[in-house]
Amino acid sequence: MTASARDRARTIALVALDVDGTLTDGTLFIGPAGEVFKGFSVRDGFGMNLLARAGITVALITARRSEIVAARAAELGIGAVVQGAKDKAGALAGLCRDHGLTLAQAAFMGDDWPDLGAMRSAGLAATVADAPQPVLDAAHWVATRPAGRGAVRELAEFVLQARGELAPLLAGYDPTPRS
Amino acid sequence: MTASARDRARTIALVALDVDGTLTDGTLFIGPAGEVFKGFSVRDGFGMNLLARAGITVALITARRSEIVAARAAELGIGAVVQGAKDKAGALAGLCRDHGLTLAQAAFMGDDWPDLGAMRSAGLAATVADAPQPVLDAAHWVATRPAGRGAVRELAEFVLQARGELAPLLAGYDPTPRS
Amino acid sequence: MTASARDRARTIALVALDVDGTLTDGTLFIGPAGEVFKGFSVRDGFGMNLLARAGITVALITARRSEIVAARAAELGIGAVVQGAKDKAGALAGLCRDHGLTLAQAAFMGDDWPDLGAMRSAGLAATVADAPQPVLDAAHWVATRPAGRGAVRELAEFVLQARGELAPLLAGYDPTPRS
Amino acid sequence: MTASARDRARTIALVALDVDGTLTDGTLFIGPAGEVFKGFSVRDGFGMNLLARAGITVALITARRSEIVAARAAELGIGAVVQGAKDKAGALAGLCRDHGLTLAQAAFMGDDWPDLGAMRSAGLAATVADAPQPVLDAAHWVATRPAGRGAVRELAEFVLQARGELAPLLAGYDPTPRS
Repeated sequence: MTASARDRARTIALVALDVDGTLTDGTLFIGPAGEVFKGFSVRDGFGMNLLARAGITVALITARRSEIVAARAAELGIGAVVQGAKDKAGALAGLCRDHGLTLAQAAFMGDDWPDLGAMRSAGLAATVADAPQPVLDAAHWVATRPAGRGAVRELAEFVLQARGELAPLLAGYDPTPRS
Repeated sequence: MTASARDRARTIALVALDVDGTLTDGTLFIGPAGEVFKGFSVRDGFGMNLLARAGITVALITARRSEIVAARAAELGIGAVVQGAKDKAGALAGLCRDHGLTLAQAAFMGDDWPDLGAMRSAGLAATVADAPQPVLDAAHWVATRPAGRGAVRELAEFVLQARGELAPLLAGYDPTPRS
Repeated sequence: MTASARDRARTIALVALDVDGTLTDGTLFIGPAGEVFKGFSVRDGFGMNLLARAGITVALITARRSEIVAARAAELGIGAVVQGAKDKAGALAGLCRDHGLTLAQAAFMGDDWPDLGAMRSAGLAATVADAPQPVLDAAHWVATRPAGRGAVRELAEFVLQARGELAPLLAGYDPTPRS
Repeated sequence: MTASARDRARTIALVALDVDGTLTDGTLFIGPAGEVFKGFSVRDGFGMNLLARAGITVALITARRSEIVAARAAELGIGAVVQGAKDKAGALAGLCRDHGLTLAQAAFMGDDWPDLGAMRSAGLAATVADAPQPVLDAAHWVATRPAGRGAVRELAEFVLQARGELAPLLAGYDPTPRS
């Protein structure tokens, strides 16, 4: 299974991510006027940066709609954002079409039942450590870290390592490691 | 005990939930003007959706009053909300009357002493993993997950499974599981 | 040690609490204009209610100043609040004087070095599970739960149980426990 | 390794800290208008106070820019703040120059790849318990606590203890420990 997931990762050119429960820990902080805050991980954000620097398209697909996701995407330079996606598999297929890619070249990471369709259709189906059992069962690859606490970063590193691009990227940050 | 709880779950037609410490982890985030934020789980929210889709009424009963609860209920399409409930058992009895149900058809999930009355009167008394001992003792069923981190979702799945409605609902999200 | 702490608890008539790191987990959430939010536990709040109902004065003593603490105290009906207390031992002594009590009748719960003076002077010195070693060493009693996650509730129950007031209070919430 | 880190700590006159993922747990709470909140630990803040009281300069170096960091620094009396630092090693070298110190007299604590340069150049390279492996590998000293939950406090105490300044500072808070 691990070998197979690694094989699948080698051909990935687009990484699409669910938002609530995948990029966040699933908590919606709701305030006095019904306004919502969500918590994102800077280390996940850095992982998305690394993917982009390796030429991999990063996309967000979410069934909800909020300015929060637009703000986070803008900060990370993510142009491919689908909000209000009732059919995530359809949204993923559309993104692949737009980028001239096949679904086999797409990874999708989700955390709950509404993500199963997109996971089934993606070349690499990934999920978070704390996903429900049917989602864990549907994944080719499961992060060791929970949602919002580094699961997306782990996926980014897994894909980049499978493609042989992790070490060169790290070298750019640490040119003179102690021997 | 497990068998008994399952038997009780089979007849449930209304699931009533306490808010603070049950749907949230019990934290009140208080800001500079005394305004309050609370954290809700999207996975709990999806569990409440599943209950509603199976024709089970979902209700919120809380001793406090806030726009937060109204906002969360509205987003989830929950019409049955009792705020400022000093007597939760009374509120639960009222909800049952309004919906033409007996208390034996009602589940109630709470997390602290003020929930004991409603738990004692409900057909299925449920609580969260991190509840105090007297509340754990009063429950027919205890979630393995703590409040605000999936306890309500777990209850939803427990009730739906006991009623034989979980697998059909899942099939709607995952029509072609790998064999 | 446990017996001694219980003996000390029996005479307590005032419970004074530090705020940051004791009633909260020590996190200051800081926003775009420098505004601060803090997280309080509803279960701690209920513990403070129980103390008040048993006739025990609850007080907050904090070195910082914020509307947050005033808001939380007001909601819980706590009238004894000392903010901006550079000398917490002095503040505790003043509170005792105001209420016609001796320091032996006062419990103080804190979590860090600036709380040591008040802890040394109080009849019952309490701290949270996650306090630094010198604070753990200075405590007569240490909660099993960390700050902001039930440590204050645990102290409230410990004091009330030592005074024989816990069971009657619980009975008011659960008149008909299953036998 | 421990001995060596202690030796390095003895000569430290400036402690520079990354912000996101080091002074916070790495979570960015994003609100409806894209505004951001971050969580800081009061116990970390007290550790920075202790360093300052021992005459050690505390500095913040972050690649991001926000009023949050300015607000937190102002509250703690930290004057040395470098925001928008693309090159953290360069920023650290500049701070040392400004304070008439050598890099061997500087400690730097970070948590991710962009911190590696500054860690490599500092006399004492420190990181948090939950850092990625390349960062753990680059550190002379690793906190037992994760970011935002006391890692910086632990570093402060480690440096002060190595310099023989911890016990005298504690004595100022606890003049009459029980024997």
